[in-house]
Amino acid sequence: MLKPALEPQGSDPALLDRLAAIVGSPHVIADRDSMTDYLVEPRGKWPGSAHAIIRPGSTAEVSAVLRLCQETATAVVPQGGNTGLVGGQMPMDREIVLSLRRLDRVRAVEPMSNSIIVEAGVTLARVRDEAEAVDRMFPLSLASEGSCTIGGNLATNAGGTAVLAYGNARDLVLGLEVVLADGRVLRGLNTLRKDNTGYDLKHLFMGSEGTLGVITAAALKLWPRPLDEAAAFVGLRTPAEALDLLALAQKQAQVTSFELIPRIGIEFTTKHAGARDPLTEHHPWYVLLDAASSTVGGAAADIGNVLEEAFERDLIGDATVSASIDQRRAFWRLRESLSDVQRLEGGSIKHDIAVPLSAIPTFLAEADAAVERLIPGVRVVAFGHVGDGNLHYNLSQPLGADQASFLGRWEEVNAVVHGIVTRLGGSISAEHGIGQSKRDLLPEVKDPTALALMHTIKQALDPKGILNPGKVLQR
Amino acid sequence: MLKPALEPQGSDPALLDRLAAIVGSPHVIADRDSMTDYLVEPRGKWPGSAHAIIRPGSTAEVSAVLRLCQETATAVVPQGGNTGLVGGQMPMDREIVLSLRRLDRVRAVEPMSNSIIVEAGVTLARVRDEAEAVDRMFPLSLASEGSCTIGGNLATNAGGTAVLAYGNARDLVLGLEVVLADGRVLRGLNTLRKDNTGYDLKHLFMGSEGTLGVITAAALKLWPRPLDEAAAFVGLRTPAEALDLLALAQKQAQVTSFELIPRIGIEFTTKHAGARDPLTEHHPWYVLLDAASSTVGGAAADIGNVLEEAFERDLIGDATVSASIDQRRAFWRLRESLSDVQRLEGGSIKHDIAVPLSAIPTFLAEADAAVERLIPGVRVVAFGHVGDGNLHYNLSQPLGADQASFLGRWEEVNAVVHGIVTRLGGSISAEHGIGQSKRDLLPEVKDPTALALMHTIKQALDPKGILNPGKVLQR
Repeated sequence: MLKPALEPQGSDPALLDRLAAIVGSPHVIADRDSMTDYLVEPRGKWPGSAHAIIRPGSTAEVSAVLRLCQETATAVVPQGGNTGLVGGQMPMDREIVLSLRRLDRVRAVEPMSNSIIVEAGVTLARVRDEAEAVDRMFPLSLASEGSCTIGGNLATNAGGTAVLAYGNARDLVLGLEVVLADGRVLRGLNTLRKDNTGYDLKHLFMGSEGTLGVITAAALKLWPRPLDEAAAFVGLRTPAEALDLLALAQKQAQVTSFELIPRIGIEFTTKHAGARDPLTEHHPWYVLLDAASSTVGGAAADIGNVLEEAFERDLIGDATVSASIDQRRAFWRLRESLSDVQRLEGGSIKHDIAVPLSAIPTFLAEADAAVERLIPGVRVVAFGHVGDGNLHYNLSQPLGADQASFLGRWEEVNAVVHGIVTRLGGSISAEHGIGQSKRDLLPEVKDPTALALMHTIKQALDPKGILNPGKVLQR
Repeated sequence: MLKPALEPQGSDPALLDRLAAIVGSPHVIADRDSMTDYLVEPRGKWPGSAHAIIRPGSTAEVSAVLRLCQETATAVVPQGGNTGLVGGQMPMDREIVLSLRRLDRVRAVEPMSNSIIVEAGVTLARVRDEAEAVDRMFPLSLASEGSCTIGGNLATNAGGTAVLAYGNARDLVLGLEVVLADGRVLRGLNTLRKDNTGYDLKHLFMGSEGTLGVITAAALKLWPRPLDEAAAFVGLRTPAEALDLLALAQKQAQVTSFELIPRIGIEFTTKHAGARDPLTEHHPWYVLLDAASSTVGGAAADIGNVLEEAFERDLIGDATVSASIDQRRAFWRLRESLSDVQRLEGGSIKHDIAVPLSAIPTFLAEADAAVERLIPGVRVVAFGHVGDGNLHYNLSQPLGADQASFLGRWEEVNAVVHGIVTRLGGSISAEHGIGQSKRDLLPEVKDPTALALMHTIKQALDPKGILNPGKVLQR
């Protein structure tokens, strides 16, 4: 299972010369120190080992590199901003890392067509800025948006906080330019809203984590900027009541985000991140709700109506609506610091799960009981995009426990939690992908016909297996 | 190019017996009269010739039928409500027609998860009704919704009037159940909003017109029903001003439909369909705009604000906002009768094109000039989903012209119009698909790498070529 499909390329200096002839010598990085940036990923779990980092500057260069790699059966790991959380962007076995960061041009901005065409290496933050500059909005939003690149966002079908209203990354795409394993360039950068001329090829590449082709540019959808936005921070008793609040809110407001936060999350952020508790009383659960409106002042008014009815129905205990942009930002800073503050409470065992919305309360009840049985005193910090059925079901070590021995139980805890998720018809990777991290779990949770079809497609598109080998699928 | 890949099955009575053993004798229809319903399509352009119609009653029966067809190299044409406009559902060469109409169960309705699971043969109207029954909304809406089936809608990635706000049919899908060419069943009916466990397989089948697999059931997204809806009928001078109105409206209202209608369309509908001209003065162009709101009375108020600003900017000549549900329906009846009334004006040569939104005015100017050069006096009836860049660019014969000789120029006119579309980066089939109608045009307009990849995928998923042969792709 772990045997390399291809020979490591470490012994072929001529290959590097040929690569340098394509991208220029300064863009072939082969010394250990200079490679470090590309070989250490955010979780520190999957140390990379590469023959070299290749930094092409254009689609034509990517095409030439892949043609050469195809000819020489050289394995290639595409990489964007190196922010992925499942090791998908890390070379495992002295492959070539193909960094897309130099493909960083904005090729076209078309406010009238509500579209923008950008190259893979443009950061997400820059895409958002370019949209704002023409009074438009690109809704994908992630904590890492300053450094992650749009190519990586699309290759991994990133999620984030605005999925409820705008969909996952794949839903924001009109067209793609992709270099195939043999160097052919699929030119699909149209900005059409409707095009039924044949099979939809773009969705194959999105979410395939660089195993089927290398995305070099994308035509993205833009939206009008909402005239008005507001947020509410709501305290309530149970996740079931959070779901009732969601249904109520979606009826009466344009809800763009709906995030669940447990009491322990407020405690961690007030203790470690200097956050202020937005509500005076303590509540077992909190919801951070964002709404937009096409009327000035409409968002806060809509939220006000929702909260009024929620109080009447006794769904919520307390709530506050953002009175200013600063206050709305403070709510969001609290939400976004939840991952970081966990680090200051010792080891964390993490999950990125989704279940059908109606199964959220059952999932939490069953998983909480199961992990407490496994590790008495474990502190559950379950938070995230509950409006999408997606929770980061993270566990902080018991107070005073030994960090290493706690973390040593990662797989065991995962197995129990994933078992519950699977039984409820859920996903063990809602938004982070498979990468190295969950590759060997995939056969356990995936429909066997779906898995077989994935292998069929991999074989058809990359018969030599040079694209990101050993990621997503076992070799 | 037109040679059959497989032998016609007309000479094998044993095959029908084996099929009858799977689906039951009453569901194998082989006599000519009873087959008629399945072999005549709406445009009367592609007469079908079938060995038999097979009507399975379950996914297991579809699977068994395809296993047998795979074993015997029997070609199969999947068919839903038989409303397609490009001949995709018509057998060309005595194939077996696989009618999915008996797969008509609603498997699950989950208002809390905003989802519904239906089998392929459920009509679109029924999906919409089932959603309404639980206070939800399924936004796909087509003139043929009473008879078209959801399986066909998804296999062809149907468009319709609500794409602007909700996307094409493929965007309304959470998961699919699909029977592959060899009878294996892909079980992907999950209702998750986020699932990044491997390749997205469902989008391959949507829009592939039954050439890669047979969709037997779908998990669909539902939405909260809008608290309020209203429509406006607007008269204006040019398509460019219609686009300016769209940008203005999208900023200040939740625009769900934005349809363009030319003056000649009003004349045809008032003359033939008993419609009342909604405005007192005549205008060269009209827009039918629908908006929703999460506030009671909000839709009409938002539209009012939009129209007020549009008047101030001199974008529009006159407008009326629907004062009642009946009036809104009357606006829509006018819009939806546009295809029918053209029939009463003689022959029509049709196009289903899309261009980037900003190219709409250029397209209309160039195409109008080109078709007038070809056929002086031709009457252009360009209408449709202009908010999506999609127009039904239809041409009624010149007054007093001979219908047959006008229709005889269909291909010649298509070639000219499609040439302009292609030059503007557009699509020659925005929502109707390829089927038989545009199969031989595809190689002229499609990126060669995309077309090659389509063949690669067809070969990988259906190596014997039994699924809807000769549709979409040349054999």
